[in-house]
Amino acid sequence: MSTAVWNGAGRRIHIQEVGPRDGLQMEKAFVPTAQKIAMVNALSAAGLAKVEVTAFVSPTAIPALADAESVLRGIERRPGTVMTCLVPNVKGAQRAMGAGADELNLVMSVSETHNLCNLRMLRSQSFAGLQEVIAVAQQGQAAVNVSLSCSFGCPMEGDVPEQVVLDWSQRFIALGVQGITLCDTTGMAHPAQVHALVRAFKARWPQTPLTLHFHDTRAMALANVLAAIDAGADRFDASVGGLGGCPYAPGASGNACTEELVHALQLMGYDTGVDLAALTQVAAGLPAQIGHDIPSAIVKAGPVHQLHPAPASLEEIRSRAHERLQATANGL
Amino acid sequence: MSTAVWNGAGRRIHIQEVGPRDGLQMEKAFVPTAQKIAMVNALSAAGLAKVEVTAFVSPTAIPALADAESVLRGIERRPGTVMTCLVPNVKGAQRAMGAGADELNLVMSVSETHNLCNLRMLRSQSFAGLQEVIAVAQQGQAAVNVSLSCSFGCPMEGDVPEQVVLDWSQRFIALGVQGITLCDTTGMAHPAQVHALVRAFKARWPQTPLTLHFHDTRAMALANVLAAIDAGADRFDASVGGLGGCPYAPGASGNACTEELVHALQLMGYDTGVDLAALTQVAAGLPAQIGHDIPSAIVKAGPVHQLHPAPASLEEIRSRAHERLQATANGL
Repeated sequence: MSTAVWNGAGRRIHIQEVGPRDGLQMEKAFVPTAQKIAMVNALSAAGLAKVEVTAFVSPTAIPALADAESVLRGIERRPGTVMTCLVPNVKGAQRAMGAGADELNLVMSVSETHNLCNLRMLRSQSFAGLQEVIAVAQQGQAAVNVSLSCSFGCPMEGDVPEQVVLDWSQRFIALGVQGITLCDTTGMAHPAQVHALVRAFKARWPQTPLTLHFHDTRAMALANVLAAIDAGADRFDASVGGLGGCPYAPGASGNACTEELVHALQLMGYDTGVDLAALTQVAAGLPAQIGHDIPSAIVKAGPVHQLHPAPASLEEIRSRAHERLQATANGL
Repeated sequence: MSTAVWNGAGRRIHIQEVGPRDGLQMEKAFVPTAQKIAMVNALSAAGLAKVEVTAFVSPTAIPALADAESVLRGIERRPGTVMTCLVPNVKGAQRAMGAGADELNLVMSVSETHNLCNLRMLRSQSFAGLQEVIAVAQQGQAAVNVSLSCSFGCPMEGDVPEQVVLDWSQRFIALGVQGITLCDTTGMAHPAQVHALVRAFKARWPQTPLTLHFHDTRAMALANVLAAIDAGADRFDASVGGLGGCPYAPGASGNACTEELVHALQLMGYDTGVDLAALTQVAAGLPAQIGHDIPSAIVKAGPVHQLHPAPASLEEIRSRAHERLQATANGL
């Protein structure tokens, strides 16, 4: 009955934008390089704590992000916004560092089946490869964040034990990485599970920056964010417009939507440091760029404080109501 | 860091279905009476605590519900499911009681502007009229619930002070009504506000059954439900498939979606008494009945525990990964 989580009381929450990478990589349309640069610039100007700018992967694997170098070299830098890039291997790390990435984001799955399907490697092979990437990053003095896919369940295997997630976190933290992201890759996380796992992580590694990456596939993203905050988390990935998605759930929502998250947290009194109007403007421009509608409830309905004009007939309705009231009072 | 709300621990939450009334009243298609009856029967068989079956209003005002008597007379009764009907006036109350309603649901808005636009009356006039309806219901021994629209804000006036909501609640509770519903009519409520208002209500009237009626217009419905539970609430309106909506936000989500709510609460360990598969089956049948898609994330993505088969190529991928591992071990 006395939970502090419902009232932000000015506490800082770091919102990290993944739309330019995690969102655009799924799009069929190739968004021109200049538009990508303008999007990243607008997102950092809106005050987001981190932007995942692009991925340094094979252009044949992900043609949508074939312009990684040009995008990263072309964007403006703003104090307070970390520019991170996904890299799968040493070659990608070298390209990203060469183009000026602040941080390298590495990915593997804690589910063996998902890792095989997604990366074609056993988890042990992914770990060995990422160990090399981390060594290269450390030589080049780039920060490293490790994203662990399927931390809240695998769409093929089902439940993933909490201890498995903590064990993989431990292996990477022991290598000296700067941060860990627990990813709810296909929107399976629920608030009870999130609260328990975040609490276990924060109890063991109170100083390690922990990010939660939720999807809204089953409409639990905001509730999961609040459960995580209540357990001590303060960093969240989200995607402008709700871009991104899950190949196993066609038509379903994708990543947690950045402007939905910022809107709710600001109403609750949290300090996100984000200009909601500027952020929503980026989201509103997306359909023209990607060629389809976006799930964003804030683009569709507007923020709560954007009121609607009363109908033109209101004063006439009010007068008639008062006339009837007067007639009743007069006993007519 | 120790909030009980994240873990339901078997606590009972009453889920009240409003789709057949609040949802269907907005539809252009007239759903045939037999289909409405089948829908209500399926919903009560699925274990919902209450079903808002129909509205006894003028058939010219809401043609979609012109068959109110036939629907209410035609449905099966199940112990544990209260059959409630919306009634606007004494005539509607008499019709509903004549057709066997367990409960009458009365509505007015706590916002003067919204009440004028929606009901063409000042709030004082609505109250006077509903007082007469309550007297008729009490003579006929029907239970009465009062739904207060715009309890979390008015889309035209903006903020509605908490004291205004409590004052209108007080007036109706003094008349001996059985329950009060605080309605977030256009999806303006946020969790901090919900927690504060529910706590204030429960502190003043711990014994009065309180329902929260949320809309998901800005993607905060589940978070609002959890904030309300944490403040002592245990009854929630929701609409199968997410039917219903807000005339001020075309394309936006409508009522909180019943199967999304049941799915999340069950994962968290709450006892809703609802058969999720049976409920989702009703939702999945809606597009064919109403002629358009529904927002339900559970219909689109399936529940978390519905796993996906691994691709046929998984074993080949795994073999190749093991071969590479062996080659590395052999120093090849």
